Amino acid sequence: MDNSVDLQTFIQYFAGLSGPRILVHGGGKSATSLAQKLGIPQTMVDGRRITDVATLDIAVMVYAGLISKQLVAGLQAGGCKAIGLCGADANLIRARKRPANPVDFGLVGDLAEKDIDAVGIGKLLEQGLCPVFSAITHNGEGQLLNTNADTIASELAVAMSEAYAVQLSFCFEAEGVLAESGSVIPQLAYADFETMQQSGAVSGGMIPKLKAAFRAAESEHVQVHITRFTALGQAGFEQSGTRILK
Amino acid sequence: MDNSVDLQTFIQYFAGLSGPRILVHGGGKSATSLAQKLGIPQTMVDGRRITDVATLDIAVMVYAGLISKQLVAGLQAGGCKAIGLCGADANLIRARKRPANPVDFGLVGDLAEKDIDAVGIGKLLEQGLCPVFSAITHNGEGQLLNTNADTIASELAVAMSEAYAVQLSFCFEAEGVLAESGSVIPQLAYADFETMQQSGAVSGGMIPKLKAAFRAAESEHVQVHITRFTALGQAGFEQSGTRILK
Repeated sequence: MDNSVDLQTFIQYFAGLSGPRILVHGGGKSATSLAQKLGIPQTMVDGRRITDVATLDIAVMVYAGLISKQLVAGLQAGGCKAIGLCGADANLIRARKRPANPVDFGLVGDLAEKDIDAVGIGKLLEQGLCPVFSAITHNGEGQLLNTNADTIASELAVAMSEAYAVQLSFCFEAEGVLAESGSVIPQLAYADFETMQQSGAVSGGMIPKLKAAFRAAESEHVQVHITRFTALGQAGFEQSGTRILK
Repeated sequence: MDNSVDLQTFIQYFAGLSGPRILVHGGGKSATSLAQKLGIPQTMVDGRRITDVATLDIAVMVYAGLISKQLVAGLQAGGCKAIGLCGADANLIRARKRPANPVDFGLVGDLAEKDIDAVGIGKLLEQGLCPVFSAITHNGEGQLLNTNADTIASELAVAMSEAYAVQLSFCFEAEGVLAESGSVIPQLAYADFETMQQSGAVSGGMIPKLKAAFRAAESEHVQVHITRFTALGQAGFEQSGTRILK
């Protein structure tokens, strides 16, 4: 969400949901804006940010600092007992620095389901808390790592599905995955996604997002859809947007 | 601590402590440095920062983002299960915007013992977690507030002392409160502090720090001292520096 009115709407709808829930966020556009103000050039490869030391500091300040705490304060005002965390907090999400080949992304983390402390996160949920994860993890040896928010959401969904039936909702500004006509595709199979990649019907940041969505949908107890954030405020939210088929 | 070597030493010593513990930190010098890079002028009154909207964003980014998460990652590497929080997280520390008279400090929070959820913090301690609080609170209505770290430490000590015997250690670069000769004053009564204020023997940021220390020392189950951070690594740490008398 690029503007504060949309963000307030999202916060209000999310705070109004019932039951245990987890929010995962990034904040790429705000990070790019701060980098620009500080005169630190940013390089993106395939929609992902190359993260040198100065860029990591920016990501940590913006994602784990400003956006995390603004979300938490807003959610608390809406009656949702949010707690803003990064992966380093309580050692809940670990990652490994991505190998420098074929592209050296710098201080970027990769993770898998086993890197998530689902039991620890479950304890927070059982206390009535709503974890709000920013897209920062650590390697357990003192190094923070910039980590893709869609990947974290996907692996979290898989890890939590050992104890919970999980609904994974990718919320953004469009109504879902759009056909070339502009209409929402109600459900998407992996073969359709491959065809769309080949034809260029999906591109940029949508490709890793959809890969993360299909990865989570492989799990038996995870239902996945991609939808507009405003759908959160509507009955039948789980059926909105584009359903990702197993 | 102004340099990263000192910070690493502190992290190593703090991680090596045993038993339930809480860390409270600020980060004023880093915030001033970021404000300078962004061209946002800073105004201090009596050692406290006047906090407009842009300055609050900087404080949140630096305290609750960069410093919090660097501390947490470092503590985790040392085997301490740290969790970096601000007052908004899990609604643990509330505050009220300071009245605009006699000085309008802007988005600055004041708090008292009752604004702290000591039961909620106790639950985290019982899970084996080490809360690391940055000097940011909220008003419960969506507004984050810049809040003095010494005040938070002091009120936390008082609030936690209902269930725990509390040792409150103010750690900094000097060996304790220093006499004009440069030697450490082993113990300080409130009357001595008043005399030192009148003579100018203490000034600047030491005055609110000592006020916070004496405030906490009023509580029956809180022991307070002011000491050098390196004392944390030594046996008899609790006896080091300047003891604040009740």
